[in-house]
Amino acid sequence: MQNLIKNLIVKNNSKIILLVLDGLGGLPGEHGKTELETADTPNLDTLAQSSGCGLHIPVAPGITPGSGPGHLALFGYDPKEFQIGRGILEALGLGLEVKNTDIAIRCNYAIVENGIVKDRRAGRIPTPESKKLTEKLQQEINKIDDVEVIFAPGMEHRFAVVLRFPEALEPGSGAINDTDPQKEGKSPLTPVPSTPQAERVAKVAEKLIAKVAEILKSENKANFILLRGFSEMPRMPSFEEAYGLKALAIAPYPMYRGVAKLIGMHAPDLKGDLKEELDSLRENYDSYDFFFIHVKKVDSFGEDGNFEGKAHKIEEVDNILPEILELKPDVLIITGDHSTPSVLKSHSWHPVPFLLKSPYVLGGLSSAFSERECRKGEFGIIPTVNLMALALANAGRLKKFGA
Amino acid sequence: MQNLIKNLIVKNNSKIILLVLDGLGGLPGEHGKTELETADTPNLDTLAQSSGCGLHIPVAPGITPGSGPGHLALFGYDPKEFQIGRGILEALGLGLEVKNTDIAIRCNYAIVENGIVKDRRAGRIPTPESKKLTEKLQQEINKIDDVEVIFAPGMEHRFAVVLRFPEALEPGSGAINDTDPQKEGKSPLTPVPSTPQAERVAKVAEKLIAKVAEILKSENKANFILLRGFSEMPRMPSFEEAYGLKALAIAPYPMYRGVAKLIGMHAPDLKGDLKEELDSLRENYDSYDFFFIHVKKVDSFGEDGNFEGKAHKIEEVDNILPEILELKPDVLIITGDHSTPSVLKSHSWHPVPFLLKSPYVLGGLSSAFSERECRKGEFGIIPTVNLMALALANAGRLKKFGA
Repeated sequence: MQNLIKNLIVKNNSKIILLVLDGLGGLPGEHGKTELETADTPNLDTLAQSSGCGLHIPVAPGITPGSGPGHLALFGYDPKEFQIGRGILEALGLGLEVKNTDIAIRCNYAIVENGIVKDRRAGRIPTPESKKLTEKLQQEINKIDDVEVIFAPGMEHRFAVVLRFPEALEPGSGAINDTDPQKEGKSPLTPVPSTPQAERVAKVAEKLIAKVAEILKSENKANFILLRGFSEMPRMPSFEEAYGLKALAIAPYPMYRGVAKLIGMHAPDLKGDLKEELDSLRENYDSYDFFFIHVKKVDSFGEDGNFEGKAHKIEEVDNILPEILELKPDVLIITGDHSTPSVLKSHSWHPVPFLLKSPYVLGGLSSAFSERECRKGEFGIIPTVNLMALALANAGRLKKFGA
Repeated sequence: MQNLIKNLIVKNNSKIILLVLDGLGGLPGEHGKTELETADTPNLDTLAQSSGCGLHIPVAPGITPGSGPGHLALFGYDPKEFQIGRGILEALGLGLEVKNTDIAIRCNYAIVENGIVKDRRAGRIPTPESKKLTEKLQQEINKIDDVEVIFAPGMEHRFAVVLRFPEALEPGSGAINDTDPQKEGKSPLTPVPSTPQAERVAKVAEKLIAKVAEILKSENKANFILLRGFSEMPRMPSFEEAYGLKALAIAPYPMYRGVAKLIGMHAPDLKGDLKEELDSLRENYDSYDFFFIHVKKVDSFGEDGNFEGKAHKIEEVDNILPEILELKPDVLIITGDHSTPSVLKSHSWHPVPFLLKSPYVLGGLSSAFSERECRKGEFGIIPTVNLMALALANAGRLKKFGA
């Protein structure tokens, strides 16, 4: 899709807003209605009546997307082609930045005795204690040779490390096995490169493990680390290269700013919730072409199985919708990155409802904004990666293909 | 799709039933209603109202599938990628088993005079006489060198042969031209291998032709055979490898058991119709994860142009539906392998209606089980190969893709 679009891009002054209610799609609860159908959403419903509506499938039918694949697809990057490594997602989620000079790694604190792993999770060491350990490691280790080492504390025994090399890494640099033996009673593995490009990284990782073991040797809670999910930056065109759009990510959660940064969006730190996000949108409205606004809590309530909470959060978004519409964006897409039905308490494979507001849609096909009403909409059920082309087309940013 | 799924499979105790009404889809008859719309199907209609509904396309829009491609697609194997040779389908249809050690061949009895084919079909020799000839051949020929030779009588001048080698054959072993010259007045061709792997097979085929000619030389109805559609086993992952499902095929017709066996399903012989199929389902319900139940007659009536007969057979299935539902399968899919509209008296290209019963669907979009009502369903119109992923997802058997 991006290859098709690339040569058709034209620039203009149009504004595109992509409002993502994380985990938006749902399933019927006790009374036969979904969260969206239960929520009182007069503004969304009115907008859906005059918008183009449909449902989108992030990865493939039946496949439940993680947050990374879900967002990449919304941004028009095929998540089957561009896979973000576990280490990178972990690092992004803990607020680290990842660049093309970097290798990101998920780490566990562990207990090793006589060279044998006794506890792969160091007794699920409490988060405050784990945090202290990680801060100590950062104090003592800043560099290994010419490689910057950046630590980020996580929950319990987990943390993340980014190895930042002086120059951009070659593809294949992250091809290193986990050092976690997966079972207690075995020795920790050494980091073994499976490509020539990864050899240098593996050596740095080996030195890192030795240094950490030296620092932790007198600790009783954890005296070793296990490394998993070595990952390099996926090779992707930037959002601006792909679409000619200067983009701002408005997202209070580090993970989603991180995914946006992976494709070069500007994603400044942001505290707060809907009000602060609206403020940021207004303040920056003249300076960008594209705005990705992320609302996390819809998904969080879904994951908790809190049907009413999820419906209520959707109502909160409905309340602020008039303020977004006041800005008169040329294209406004409202949707989710995947479904998170409260009855499943998890992400799910179900197609995600969306509406696209633009002067150039049919409209009049859906009576409300919901899974079932969007099913009647003019877009039908489409792959999520197609949304960006529809956004660009409706913003007058795509030339004719062929003569 | 199978590649995407492979790494996401998890196992649990869920049960999936795939009920295939062969040739289910239809077209309006005299009164403007299809066979499904004409049939009185209170149970299917009620189930459709609470199920996810849609239509599926086995091969591609406008393409009429044979039974092999139709079923492979239902089982999640792309029929454009995995093509089953004509020889194999013929052998399966006549009740032979085909393994990876085998070459299957369609054969015709013929009359040859002075080295020239006088009749390619031996006067469409009556089936009972043809059967006697084939049994005689089997009595006289059991082996050629170390290759087992298995004959199966067919209709009129047709029969099938399986050459069973002592070990698994290499890809390309079946690449041998037909010996049928396609026109009377020409010489029969010799079997010529078009790959090195097929050379050995071609030699065995040559010996087979000579032996048969020797045995038939005193017969007046047929004195020669023509070989067509040399085929080897397609290289496919087994159903269990692909999905982690232990599967039972409940199918009274050999052809469909044969297709199921090709992908390693257990497919024991079964006599009877719906009642016997239900008995088998109940008896085996605890021993398998996945049940493929095949109802042939819906298609047969369609092929005969018997609109009322087809509608009536659908009603018979509707009658037994409560007994299937009593087993409380986690996922129940009811559909066909292709459409067979009575007005066309043949398979057709029309999308096939389906319903998927599961706790995790929206439902409420279709008022009955029919081509037109399924069009309103939540799944839209999808490729048939996607059904297996939906079945697995709804059975809780697929992990999340990416983090």
